[in-house]
Amino acid sequence: MKTYLDCVPCFFKQALEAARIAGAGPRKQKEILDELSRILPSLPLTASPPEIGRVIYGLVNRLTSRKDIYADIKEKSNKLAMSVYPRLKNKVERSSDRLLEAIELAIAGNVIDYGVKNSLDVDKEVKNILDEENNRIRKQKKGVFEYKKFRQALRRAKTVLYLADNAGEIVFDRVLIEEIKRTDTDKKIICAVKEKPIINDALVKDAYRCGVDKAAEIISSGSDAPGTVLSLCSKKFLKIFKEADLVISKGQGNFEVLSGVHRPVFFLFMAKCPVVAREVNCGVGDIILLHHPGTLKTGKGKRGK
Amino acid sequence: MKTYLDCVPCFFKQALEAARIAGAGPRKQKEILDELSRILPSLPLTASPPEIGRVIYGLVNRLTSRKDIYADIKEKSNKLAMSVYPRLKNKVERSSDRLLEAIELAIAGNVIDYGVKNSLDVDKEVKNILDEENNRIRKQKKGVFEYKKFRQALRRAKTVLYLADNAGEIVFDRVLIEEIKRTDTDKKIICAVKEKPIINDALVKDAYRCGVDKAAEIISSGSDAPGTVLSLCSKKFLKIFKEADLVISKGQGNFEVLSGVHRPVFFLFMAKCPVVAREVNCGVGDIILLHHPGTLKTGKGKRGK
Repeated sequence: MKTYLDCVPCFFKQALEAARIAGAGPRKQKEILDELSRILPSLPLTASPPEIGRVIYGLVNRLTSRKDIYADIKEKSNKLAMSVYPRLKNKVERSSDRLLEAIELAIAGNVIDYGVKNSLDVDKEVKNILDEENNRIRKQKKGVFEYKKFRQALRRAKTVLYLADNAGEIVFDRVLIEEIKRTDTDKKIICAVKEKPIINDALVKDAYRCGVDKAAEIISSGSDAPGTVLSLCSKKFLKIFKEADLVISKGQGNFEVLSGVHRPVFFLFMAKCPVVAREVNCGVGDIILLHHPGTLKTGKGKRGK
Repeated sequence: MKTYLDCVPCFFKQALEAARIAGAGPRKQKEILDELSRILPSLPLTASPPEIGRVIYGLVNRLTSRKDIYADIKEKSNKLAMSVYPRLKNKVERSSDRLLEAIELAIAGNVIDYGVKNSLDVDKEVKNILDEENNRIRKQKKGVFEYKKFRQALRRAKTVLYLADNAGEIVFDRVLIEEIKRTDTDKKIICAVKEKPIINDALVKDAYRCGVDKAAEIISSGSDAPGTVLSLCSKKFLKIFKEADLVISKGQGNFEVLSGVHRPVFFLFMAKCPVVAREVNCGVGDIILLHHPGTLKTGKGKRGK
């Protein structure tokens, strides 16, 4: 997906938020926005939003002399998410459709606000999100939540590549990965994370910290953008990406960079902004499980582009 | 109120929206955002948001070779609002507290989306807004809706200056102005509008078009910013502004430019953004009737600045 002009205000918003999280004072914050004003006109809108985002967060790092602005936030998210892990597992075990439950939890993990106080709050938030989610999923047309298609593709797949999104959230991904593994212990699952700190995206250490290694092989994709930008990825990753029987792409950032890729992908995310919602032809806040066929001609509007 | 860095993303959003309303294509839209990027770092944040807004909309006018981008929108809003005028009057007449009802309607007029289809839709929207408003007003602490203080000040005032906000909305202002006039026909009421087209702000012709002249003298303030910026105002207006017994300032734009002024003002608006909400110490979407004492030392936090 290309970058739209509607993304421009959001880039300034993100830069300002990152500057503040980095502890920049008002003068430094202004310097960052001014520098963004200076470089933005030269950035190509044909690039995806995460590719532009990578430049913007790089700029904030440089001007604040920081390397991992979101380190504390990531650690707090991991800790909180790990504290509810047993209850997430229990929720899946009690469910009549364990896989669907695990998918819903994985999406809840993406939506959750880890800024909340404690594990009970997180519990409550998961519950709220799932209640809303279930309502939404029930309301949605089949096309935007292609669960049946996903289940079938998963059954056939011997190797599954799971593109993770954020720290904290990755605990919820682990629950889904473990559920996939449980149904077929011969399945090989590889979980790919980002190469270097970028926003609150999960890194290799977050994946280990959250026990994802218990069910999957953990690798870095090589991308240090807030999405798996293939041109930034390692050869090793690209080989796996090409050869995996099934790719599960988690989060909006991964959708933004891979929505036009020439291989089948299942996108699992919440449409968090109007630009992406328009791209998917859904509403803001909708839960998406989208099968992208990955061929040039799909006859399904924008999806196959 | 000064401009905050949080306003920067919003300036880009506004420029993009104005460009689109002006009929600019994607290339022209990008040119406008790029030009805004170029000039924004040099604009002083000590200026109020409407002062910056004036520059931004001027830029959009210049690059699209348009003088009154919102002309059609304003005319449509005037027409729709006029079509519900008899029902607004009826609503006030049936009310047990006519002044309060008229104030609430004036705020509803500010909130309404005139993009809706017909007068029945507008009726419905007024109803919805008032229902929500009443809920909000009931919930609010006394300090943010200083109705009693307003009623007292109004009773004593012989000359009232009413700073209008938008086209369409000015029909609702007319209802409030007429209610003020009804209780004391000797009161002199002056309604000030903007000097030149700026966004959808009401001009002299809109005030006449909407019959405001039936109850008030209509003047231009001289300001062509989306707020009554005193340094842009005419001598005639400034004399009235200084000498009026009561100034009613309508809309968020007028609050933004006059929140620090050294004379008493009653601000009547909905806090539409988080920056203004923080300034007033209220929530986004709150209905505000705020007495600004207009002295340097008020002991009431930010209000007296």
